[in-house]
Amino acid sequence: MNKQIIFKKRPEGLPDDHTWELQSNPIPEPAEGEVLIQHHYISLDPAMRGWMNEGKSYIEPIAIDDVMRAGAIGKVIKTNNHPTIKEGDFLTGWGGVQQYAATDGSNWRKVAPDLVPLPMYIGTLGMPGMTAYFGILEVGKIKEDDTVLVSGGAGAVGSIVGQIAKIKGCNVIGIAGGADKCSYMLNELGFDGVIDYKSENIQDAIHRECPDGIDVYFDNVGGEILDAALSKLRMHARVVLCGAISQYNDKENIKGPDNYLSLLINRATMQGMIVMDYTNDFEKAAIEMGGWLATGKLKSREDIYDGIENFRDTFLRLFSGDKKGKLVLKVLEEE
Amino acid sequence: MNKQIIFKKRPEGLPDDHTWELQSNPIPEPAEGEVLIQHHYISLDPAMRGWMNEGKSYIEPIAIDDVMRAGAIGKVIKTNNHPTIKEGDFLTGWGGVQQYAATDGSNWRKVAPDLVPLPMYIGTLGMPGMTAYFGILEVGKIKEDDTVLVSGGAGAVGSIVGQIAKIKGCNVIGIAGGADKCSYMLNELGFDGVIDYKSENIQDAIHRECPDGIDVYFDNVGGEILDAALSKLRMHARVVLCGAISQYNDKENIKGPDNYLSLLINRATMQGMIVMDYTNDFEKAAIEMGGWLATGKLKSREDIYDGIENFRDTFLRLFSGDKKGKLVLKVLEEE
Repeated sequence: MNKQIIFKKRPEGLPDDHTWELQSNPIPEPAEGEVLIQHHYISLDPAMRGWMNEGKSYIEPIAIDDVMRAGAIGKVIKTNNHPTIKEGDFLTGWGGVQQYAATDGSNWRKVAPDLVPLPMYIGTLGMPGMTAYFGILEVGKIKEDDTVLVSGGAGAVGSIVGQIAKIKGCNVIGIAGGADKCSYMLNELGFDGVIDYKSENIQDAIHRECPDGIDVYFDNVGGEILDAALSKLRMHARVVLCGAISQYNDKENIKGPDNYLSLLINRATMQGMIVMDYTNDFEKAAIEMGGWLATGKLKSREDIYDGIENFRDTFLRLFSGDKKGKLVLKVLEEE
Repeated sequence: MNKQIIFKKRPEGLPDDHTWELQSNPIPEPAEGEVLIQHHYISLDPAMRGWMNEGKSYIEPIAIDDVMRAGAIGKVIKTNNHPTIKEGDFLTGWGGVQQYAATDGSNWRKVAPDLVPLPMYIGTLGMPGMTAYFGILEVGKIKEDDTVLVSGGAGAVGSIVGQIAKIKGCNVIGIAGGADKCSYMLNELGFDGVIDYKSENIQDAIHRECPDGIDVYFDNVGGEILDAALSKLRMHARVVLCGAISQYNDKENIKGPDNYLSLLINRATMQGMIVMDYTNDFEKAAIEMGGWLATGKLKSREDIYDGIENFRDTFLRLFSGDKKGKLVLKVLEEE
């Protein structure tokens, strides 16, 4: 059987018992020209919360009674005369939160399972890594010696943002919650400074760590931290709007950045980015990221939980912050 | 005597009786190499409110007991061996709110009094016009067929923004307060649509006038109107932050744009601009603007009040909106 997480009810605030239903349905048969993929891992990302809301966004909302949308990685276990994909190939794509998916392979890409661990293909070499790469380089336009502040600095996107900025010769300050994450950013990732938003006044800490101001702020969180960062922008600073995890569960009461006029005073730019816009450049980025991984310049950390039954509890770790690096759910049941 | 408006007390909220003092002091003597300018007109601009606040901004705050900072235009009535400026020359520069200024002429520029009326040199061909020109072209990056929304659309900056956008083939919607200003934008300036924020629900009106969304929003006001505009951005839209007149008199309670995540969803950019950054390009812009004025493509309207004694009451018209076009104070006392 194919265990699936079915989207049943749009949540107000955090998802709860009524948001999804776990169903067991027959494993689909691939139609002519299709393949059947057995999922190994599912990617859990903050953006998934946004896709659950009604209304216009950068992507259609998930429909009620559909399989919950998510990135996945798995192995082809059957093909029905697919011209290029073979049994045993590993693919990553929008498989959804389920154990099996039948597809014609469009929008899936092949990965090499012997090169890096599979979960890394949905993390550092997947959407979060690509978001970091294009966000900090193309939108943030970092230059050597820039002071770069990144929130969610120990997370799937932020940890890569900070490391790329280090590779490019920037002074990097990471913000995260808790001593463990701060120690990780400082000692493992090599950031120049860290801020623990759970134990420090964020405004004071930004003044301490960025005494001459911020050239690039990469925002994954929104809210108070965005406002504090705006208050310390340097001339011609760039604010990369990548996410707003502090705001996703209270859509009716989104809090705008009261310090937005700092953009005016400092001739600064705040720009949103969506990683899908860079799809055509993923391969080029993957080659460069692969090189950094191979030479130890870039570190990748995945936090892997087990069992599709645990989807909701694992997903909620994105919002409690109780996770280390890229959050991944293993849905393959080993025999 | 030289009547001067002296800055005495930083206001909370709107300036009042205690903010300035009118003094009569001796007319200054130009030192060796200086000239004495008799001011004809003073420019009244929203930015002046910002200069009165303490603290870091894009320019030093006005010091207590200094002459109130303002742009001015006047005639040289005496020179003390200035190498290039002659008696009878007309100059515009930061003369301040007073009737006479002695200066070595640095940062002043000569104007031709017979070419256009003097007040136009501190309006359409001065800071407001330059702000409009560089803001909509360099920051807004308008292209033919863009839908351009401009707030303060009947004002010194907004009226020029909208007209330049029309010249460039855009679809232009102007926002202003009251039927008179709306009729001016529609019938005199040739805008394609208008919104009266005093009598309409701004959100509904933007949906009506920009059914397919906004490519460029030029913001002179902030607050609710900025928020409503953000909610209708098109993909890759540009928001030009030029001013925030709704926010200038309540510095402690600036209201950020709650819809800022529209920048993310639409990969849009919000960028601040300060006209002083473009000083080196003013001449080039003035030539192009002069051509548009000469051929009737660009219309300029000045609202001129008389008497330095009326400075405060006239200045407050900027915030009540009770003015038509560029606000100018005549300080020359005709004999």
